[in-house]
Amino acid sequence: MASPKYRLFSVDDHIIEPPNVWIDRVPSKYGDLIPHVIEEDGRQYWVWEGNKIPQMGLNAVAGKPQEEWNTEPVRFSDMIPGCYDPVERAKDMRSDGILASVCFPTLAGFGGRVLNNFSDKELASLLVRAYNDFILEEWCAAAPDLFVPMIIGQLWDPEAMAAEIRRCAELGARALTFPEGPVSLGLPSFFSDYWDPIFRACEETEVVVCMHIGSSGELTNPAPDGHFIIPIALGNLNAQAAMVTFAMSPIPRKFPNIKLAISEGGVGWIAAALERADRQFKKHRLHQHMDDLLPSEVWRRNIWGCMIDEPIGLKSRYDIGVDKILWECDYPHCDSTWPHSQKLVHEFLGELPEEEITAITHGNAEKLFRWKIGVGAV
Amino acid sequence: MASPKYRLFSVDDHIIEPPNVWIDRVPSKYGDLIPHVIEEDGRQYWVWEGNKIPQMGLNAVAGKPQEEWNTEPVRFSDMIPGCYDPVERAKDMRSDGILASVCFPTLAGFGGRVLNNFSDKELASLLVRAYNDFILEEWCAAAPDLFVPMIIGQLWDPEAMAAEIRRCAELGARALTFPEGPVSLGLPSFFSDYWDPIFRACEETEVVVCMHIGSSGELTNPAPDGHFIIPIALGNLNAQAAMVTFAMSPIPRKFPNIKLAISEGGVGWIAAALERADRQFKKHRLHQHMDDLLPSEVWRRNIWGCMIDEPIGLKSRYDIGVDKILWECDYPHCDSTWPHSQKLVHEFLGELPEEEITAITHGNAEKLFRWKIGVGAV
Repeated sequence: MASPKYRLFSVDDHIIEPPNVWIDRVPSKYGDLIPHVIEEDGRQYWVWEGNKIPQMGLNAVAGKPQEEWNTEPVRFSDMIPGCYDPVERAKDMRSDGILASVCFPTLAGFGGRVLNNFSDKELASLLVRAYNDFILEEWCAAAPDLFVPMIIGQLWDPEAMAAEIRRCAELGARALTFPEGPVSLGLPSFFSDYWDPIFRACEETEVVVCMHIGSSGELTNPAPDGHFIIPIALGNLNAQAAMVTFAMSPIPRKFPNIKLAISEGGVGWIAAALERADRQFKKHRLHQHMDDLLPSEVWRRNIWGCMIDEPIGLKSRYDIGVDKILWECDYPHCDSTWPHSQKLVHEFLGELPEEEITAITHGNAEKLFRWKIGVGAV
Repeated sequence: MASPKYRLFSVDDHIIEPPNVWIDRVPSKYGDLIPHVIEEDGRQYWVWEGNKIPQMGLNAVAGKPQEEWNTEPVRFSDMIPGCYDPVERAKDMRSDGILASVCFPTLAGFGGRVLNNFSDKELASLLVRAYNDFILEEWCAAAPDLFVPMIIGQLWDPEAMAAEIRRCAELGARALTFPEGPVSLGLPSFFSDYWDPIFRACEETEVVVCMHIGSSGELTNPAPDGHFIIPIALGNLNAQAAMVTFAMSPIPRKFPNIKLAISEGGVGWIAAALERADRQFKKHRLHQHMDDLLPSEVWRRNIWGCMIDEPIGLKSRYDIGVDKILWECDYPHCDSTWPHSQKLVHEFLGELPEEEITAITHGNAEKLFRWKIGVGAV
């Protein structure tokens, strides 16, 4: 195979957790409380602590024809192995010129919210560590030059989560997934000091905080009786809400070196969102006794956005900052460019100046995640 | 005074209803159920059917120094008369070169939602008619060349509302205010046929349906303990949610000549929102058995956006369509350009080609509302 033209760093892909993630790593005394897979009526189910879900891989449609996209897989064998097998995933990635990949969890929730719902928090903490060990020892170890380690944490216990971030950072973790709307999960907002230990740990270890749209468990749906694509088409609303709230919050003020990456939010809305936020900030900061650190300044210093393919959005790149734009593949979801990433990237980026192509396809992500494409951690 | 350089058509201003709107027009047998103003402890209150609110003019800060913006007026005398007096309002508008103005209600809710909450729907219907009569006979009559009549309707009774739209259209109404998120109000979504009589009446009478952000009674607030400006900075989320939902819904398919104006949403997000919505629509329309009318085509045919001053957003005007962009003053709210509209418009539009300035400042709105600036209804 000819070597692919574009060297791609995908900052947003998804692991479909294989059945052994937790049962291999959590003491067996917890028995059926541990997430595990059972067979029943010719289907497979994930089962844990009073829950049973028939859905083996949320929107894991990679490699399927579009006509089958509305059928969720009910067995692992309904998916291509790259969904859950890191060796196969790495082959799929490389075959499409994707040489670095940050992977979010699925069963655990994009931001780890599912484990937050366990009533036994001691077990939940073991499950968090087990997931992170799976990532570090099994998933990423299968292709250490390619898989950028992303971990989850104990959202219900910021001190324990900070310790877990430090433990994993020592072992090579480069990213933490964190819910983009914690209030929706019954957790404190970005304005609370509850989260300080976590952001302090991320700042000190240079671990990038990644907020994926929908990790709050909610998307905007103004018509529950309408097409299911409406909340997806409105997914950037979660991204803007998280970005603007974070940029006005105390977090980047207390932790000026914190790095936040917003995942699957697209980029076309960013310049307008910053213009709108700056306008409100300037109008009201005096009578609200706010400081003079504009949302757009926090953006430039602390936040990155990413996109799949967005030719119109990309026109605003000089207002966003070319150095703040990352690329994502979104394997194995239906928005994914895989296995046509080279073609699609060429169509929407090919005409840009060489240095912009380099920055967006991998250069910006390399700096952000301290990772050299084709090499690994640096 | 020198005649102002820019002839401005504002598609979004706000009436602070004067105390007599309803008591002058609804049979006195309804007594204290009718919205009326009382004096108590040196303040004024609006009182109706079990409600008492101490807030005389939501965010009516026109003419006040910024330091006082966080104090809501508790008496009519806390506001400049232009807030509630149409003769004074017309003077204020003209002094700033604003020669046409569409005004939304305040007490009734931007989209009339407050009247929807009345338990006595017969009274509520009388209140709707009274408001509309006030608009047609009193507010707009004070400057018939300047005030573009906007009415409200009986959201709980689409047939009655359709009849009211037709009655008022005969009397000159050019616009209807309608909540941008009816589901939040406990009403059916745009995918329901519940609303058909209303949209049919608007299509037939060419009355423009105006959806103001927040008219659903909700704004996005990811940090209830954070700055109050966050939901305002995120106001465009409501606009995008309404626009995308409408564009995918049956309404523009059943009523291909319907005209929808989205108010106070800004414009910088529109091109990216359409790109994202089109992408989802194209990906899923086959297996979801949708037609091939793209959201961006509905936009071009049926929807208009508006902005206050938004230099960055305006850069995307060729992707939005210069003919789809309207201007608003937002008098008397704190986002208003008044009394500096000429200066601000010059700063952010002055460099554009002449025909674009004409279109955005008034030409597009003239066509949409069938209204000639400086003359009135055409």
